This record gives sequence, structure tokens and C-alpha cells, in this order.
Amino acid sequence: MEGSPRFFSDKLNIQVKTGHEVLELDPPGQRIKVRRMADNSHWWEPYEQLALTTGASPITPPFPGIQAAGIHTANSIQSATAIRALMEEQKPKKAVVVGGGYIGLEMAEALLMQGLEVALVEMADEVMGTLDPDMGQMVSQGLKDGGVALHTGETVKRFAEANGKVTAVVTDKGEIPADLVVLGLGVKPNSELVNDSHIELGVKGAIRVNERMQTNVPGIWAAGDCAETFHLVSRRPVYVALATVAAKTGRVAGLNIGGEYATFPGVVGTAITKFQEMEIARTGLQESEIRALGWEYASQVVESATKVSYYPDVAPLKLKILAEKKSGRFLGAQIVGGKDAAKRIDTMAVCLHARFTVDQMLHLDLSYAPPYASVWEPLHIAVRKIQGKL
Amino acid sequence: MEGSPRFFSDKLNIQVKTGHEVLELDPPGQRIKVRRMADNSHWWEPYEQLALTTGASPITPPFPGIQAAGIHTANSIQSATAIRALMEEQKPKKAVVVGGGYIGLEMAEALLMQGLEVALVEMADEVMGTLDPDMGQMVSQGLKDGGVALHTGETVKRFAEANGKVTAVVTDKGEIPADLVVLGLGVKPNSELVNDSHIELGVKGAIRVNERMQTNVPGIWAAGDCAETFHLVSRRPVYVALATVAAKTGRVAGLNIGGEYATFPGVVGTAITKFQEMEIARTGLQESEIRALGWEYASQVVESATKVSYYPDVAPLKLKILAEKKSGRFLGAQIVGGKDAAKRIDTMAVCLHARFTVDQMLHLDLSYAPPYASVWEPLHIAVRKIQGKL
Repeated sequence: MEGSPRFFSDKLNIQVKTGHEVLELDPPGQRIKVRRMADNSHWWEPYEQLALTTGASPITPPFPGIQAAGIHTANSIQSATAIRALMEEQKPKKAVVVGGGYIGLEMAEALLMQGLEVALVEMADEVMGTLDPDMGQMVSQGLKDGGVALHTGETVKRFAEANGKVTAVVTDKGEIPADLVVLGLGVKPNSELVNDSHIELGVKGAIRVNERMQTNVPGIWAAGDCAETFHLVSRRPVYVALATVAAKTGRVAGLNIGGEYATFPGVVGTAITKFQEMEIARTGLQESEIRALGWEYASQVVESATKVSYYPDVAPLKLKILAEKKSGRFLGAQIVGGKDAAKRIDTMAVCLHARFTVDQMLHLDLSYAPPYASVWEPLHIAVRKIQGKL
Repeated sequence: MEGSPRFFSDKLNIQVKTGHEVLELDPPGQRIKVRRMADNSHWWEPYEQLALTTGASPITPPFPGIQAAGIHTANSIQSATAIRALMEEQKPKKAVVVGGGYIGLEMAEALLMQGLEVALVEMADEVMGTLDPDMGQMVSQGLKDGGVALHTGETVKRFAEANGKVTAVVTDKGEIPADLVVLGLGVKPNSELVNDSHIELGVKGAIRVNERMQTNVPGIWAAGDCAETFHLVSRRPVYVALATVAAKTGRVAGLNIGGEYATFPGVVGTAITKFQEMEIARTGLQESEIRALGWEYASQVVESATKVSYYPDVAPLKLKILAEKKSGRFLGAQIVGGKDAAKRIDTMAVCLHARFTVDQMLHLDLSYAPPYASVWEPLHIAVRKIQGKL
């Protein structure tokens, strides 16, 4: 089976050892301490090159009651299987999703589709904290319109339980009944293993790497969700636990370990998701990030549409763009809209890679035909309007 | 009514004179000769600044029989109204579309939707000459699958008629019965008016302009489908009669005439269309254009998909990219695919504006989530593969 240890050994000449835990790194000795879980045996395994690709784990704050049955994260095939099993065996009616980010929205959508009543608790005033609040507000509204009982500005305090099973999420404002709780509170890098080594950690405890995915210790590499990356707009290190980054950095580390020369220059902060018919995307820096850098900026929101107004299935598209004052440099964009809105974010991501000013974006030769767009793309309109503010 | 002469005069202080024909330009005298069609009166009208925005006209070769009733172009509200009237009054059963470009494909789709039998005649071996033949072949196949009787490699010789009405399109290979013929053979700039002036013409007889949309004659400007533009990839003048260019150049000319300073740097050759569920897009240079420039290039075709393979409504996406040898500069891209394929062309158009090499495109931070894309976008895969050929 593709992906099985046998597949790796037969087809790729890679020995995959499942059921083995790494307990300790010994970089000076170029060896790692391994435990075989089946028989609890230990030994030191030597290496010439070591790739740390330990991933990330969901954040599970020490809320009282968090160990109760019926409380799950959604970060692996195992967790998805566990939620599915619970749904089939216990037929829960009321689900509470904790956290209004990508995982929270996707789980809320999936649980609604399964016929559950769904509440979502988010500490901030709006869901989707990777958008500015004015754009996040649209997403909050979309959740409510889509049937989610939304509890924003509300903080989880503990979980109530009966007979070991969760019965409610208790917040600073009240109690929300729950047969099933899904936690979507973000992830943290799995970097505990390097704690006693001299491998340097960076943002949010992720393993610090250079463009080639080398750590500060010779012969040790890191890639994927356990590693830090670099933000090409802020020019600062950043932690981004997304599949796009993991796939690229894993490939770069592998090429380098194999003797080639490859680099991963960094990210511009692109992400995309959806909730029912609502499409959501962002790239670059959001307002809070720009303020933290101390940069002066202007913003522009336009309410436009995915295609010409007379075309079937035209949907609204709200676009926000941000640009630096004086330089005019484009800094970021956020999209909330209907069908066919969000993938336009890629166009703006490339503008960030190119370090374009908004002046350079005014006449971008973007495609137009009535089924796809208006003659002036929403981006053109936003750029025209922001020019007067810079 | 918005768009009426009264609207322009009341709301915008612009005097619009419909039913007036310009017969002659007199640049040294800064005046134009005008004829009022209602009473055939003539006079010289003075100007300080003159904007030529005469548009383009469909190419109608002097085929014998082309004046027969039932033969139409599709370039204006008037021509659309005429085709609609013919369909309602005469209930045609057999339509022949001449020309396999954007207009030809869109008319074939529309006529099939109206229940007609549709044949399409194209002189070249494949439709969509703005794609390379290997990509055009997919479009040809899509037309056939969609119910069009396709006649490629076939040249129209004349139209047969009876009682003044078209009855068939006669080609070098045979006769195709027709109650209705639509011509989609491209357009030519309406630049006849400047023939006796000293205004310089350029590619395909379009009016030559600089970045500010000034002609070579002081005080005379041109914009839209009558004007030449500049191709940012080939660095050569080019004639592109598309709405995107017309809207942008019209705005630039207007700003300049009004005393501001605006420029239109040029196009990268982006265009998009569809036929039924098949989406089609292109940007940059195609192989024949690169060969004409004498540049060495490599090409790469990848067969990918619009989203992850397990997601509902995933559709095939075939992407072709072209890059210059030695420099590695990205030169162009073509997409043929299903739903959600074609608008990705904008991402590649921005790469052309940025004058990226394919190396610079390998790690573009493009958006990924299962409803929208795979972790590796088709563009990433194509770039990875073409790198080995440069």
C-alpha cells in the first residue's frame, strides 16, 4: 500500500520504523536514542545527517475537565476517526467548537452537514483572527447565517462533565450544552526533543533554520510544522504551520541532504478556507502585524463581485488591501466573498513576492470575460482607490 | 438613462453627439469635419485636444455571397439584436460559425443552447489560434464532445444563397448547409480616418501611441481598440483588441487630456474564455511568437487538477508553460481545463509583469485548501519539471 513501511522500503529504499519513539538527541555523538514501543527496548542509533520533521500538535490548554470523553482535537486521521466513531456510536446532538480559525470553521461546517446543532466559542470579538476585524466581522455574520450559534468575545473556563463525559462548555458568560467538543485552538511545534541539545529555537518555539533548512547544529536539518520560516513582507522570522510550507521545506531539506543545493526563501502569508458558500482568503500582513512593525499604512475596502453583474451565479466579493505610506508598497490583501472569490488571492500573493508598489499593480493584465470577472478586477478598483491615500 | 446623451450632459457635463459622422481630420487647423446624419449638413468643429476612440470592426473578407441575408458578425448590440430577431422570426435549424477564436467559441456555445445544429469552420488545424496547437487540440476535442460539427483545416470559399438568403457555406472541402452564419474572424482597427493625416499607424494598422496614449501629432490621442499597445514580454508593439486594454487605455488618455500624468505600460497577453464546462486561458507569448522573436525556449505540459483528487467537483487542468533557455525567464502559460481552472492564469500574468525566472516561481506562496487546490499548484509542478530543460 502506498505510504506503508513496505512501500517505502520496496519502492524507495527508505527504512521506515513505525512504533519507534526518539527519546533524546546527542549531536556531539551524532546519534539519537530510540525506544521500540513494542518491547520497550532502547538503543542509540547513529546518523550522518539528521532531519527533524516532527510536525506540530494541537494546543490544548489545561482547562478543568479537558480529559472528559467527547472532547477532541482535529489534527490527524486518528482524531478524525475518533470523532466519526463517537458520532456513529453516541449520536451526539449538540456540538461546540472552541476556536474560530481555519479548523474551527471547517469543523463547524462539517458538523452542521452531519445534522448537529453547532455552537462556536471564540475569545476575540470576531472569528478568523488572521483577517482584520472588519473582514472577520463578515465571516462571523456568515457563520450565524449558516446556522452556527456564535459566541464571540467569550472565554472558555472549563468543561462540565457527567460520568466522565462532557456535558457542557463553561465560559465566562455562561454554559453551552455539548455532547461533542472540538478544539481548534491552533498548534505548537513539536520541538521538545531539542530542548536539551544546542539546537536553537525561534518564533513560538519552532526550530530555527536557514534558507537551506539547516539548524545551527551541523548535520541537523528541520522542515515542516516543527520549523520556523521567514516572512518575505515583514522580513522577520515567522511560524506558519501550513501544508504548503511543510511540503516545500521538506523537499528543500531532502534535496540538500541528498547533496543538491536548494533554498526556500520564505512565505508571504497566504491562506485560504471556506465556510459553506462563503470563501475566505488572505495574504501578506494584516493591520495588527503592520502596526507591530511600526510601519505607516493605508487600507482600502471595495465591495465588488466575482463576475459581471448580469452573469448567472455572480457572487459578492469584498476585498481589502493594505499598502505602506510614502513607499506605496503593497503589504497585504484579504478576501471574503461567494463562489469563485477566494482563489484570486494568489494574484496578490505574487504581487507580494514581486515587492510591487500599488502603482505597479494598477494596470496588471488580468483576465476578463463575463463568466470570470469584470473588466476592472476588484484588485484594480482597490488599487485605484488606495492611491489617493498614500 | 445611464449611457444616454442626456445622462452624459446632465451628470458629467459632456456633450455627446450621436448621429454625427467625422469625415476628415485637419490637425494643422486643429479641427475636424463633421456631418450630421439627420440633415446631411457639414461643418468644421474646432478642438484643442482630440481623442480618437473609434474602436475596431469585424473582419469580413470579400467572400462571394457574403451580402446574403442570414450572415452576421457578433460585435455589437445591433448585431446581437439582428441575430436574435432572425432566430425568432425564421427559426433557423442549422448554424455555421466561421472562425474558431473567442467569438467563434462563444457563439457556438450560445447557438447550441438555443437548440440549433452548429458547425464551425476553422482554417487552421486546431481552433483557438492564440494557444499552441497541442493545447488547441484539447479545445477542438471539447467542441466536438460538446456537439459542434467541427471543420478544421478547411477554408471558406463562398456562401451559397437562394432568394437572397444564405443556404450553405462552401469551403475547399465541401458544402455545409446553413440557415444562419456567424462570422468570428477577428477585428481590424478603425483607423481609416487618419489615413490622410500625418498620424502614424503601427501593427495591423492600429494608431501608434506612446505610454500616455499620445499619437505622434501634438494634441491628438488614441485609446481602445483603434490603438496599438506594447507587449511587456516581447518588448514589441502589438495590437490587442480586448476590453481590458480598452478600459485601461481610455482612462489613461482621459487623465492625461484632463491635465494629470498617467501611463499605460502595456500588456502581457492575457485572455480567457470558456466553451460549456471547458475553461480556456492564456498569457504571455505562445510558441509561434517566441520562434518569431528568434528566442530559444523550453516548454512543459502538466496534467493536473483544479483541487485535491478526493474533493467533490474536482476537474482536470492541463497547464503548459514556456520559458527562455539560459536566462530561465518565464515567457507564457496556457490553461485548458474544467470548472475553476482558467482564472489561475492571473497568477501567471503577474509573474510575467514581474519578469520572474522560473526559479523565482518555484516557491510562490499560493493558496491551498482541499476545495481550492492541491498542496502543489499545477504551476509549481510545471516549474519543477521545466527547470531540468533549461
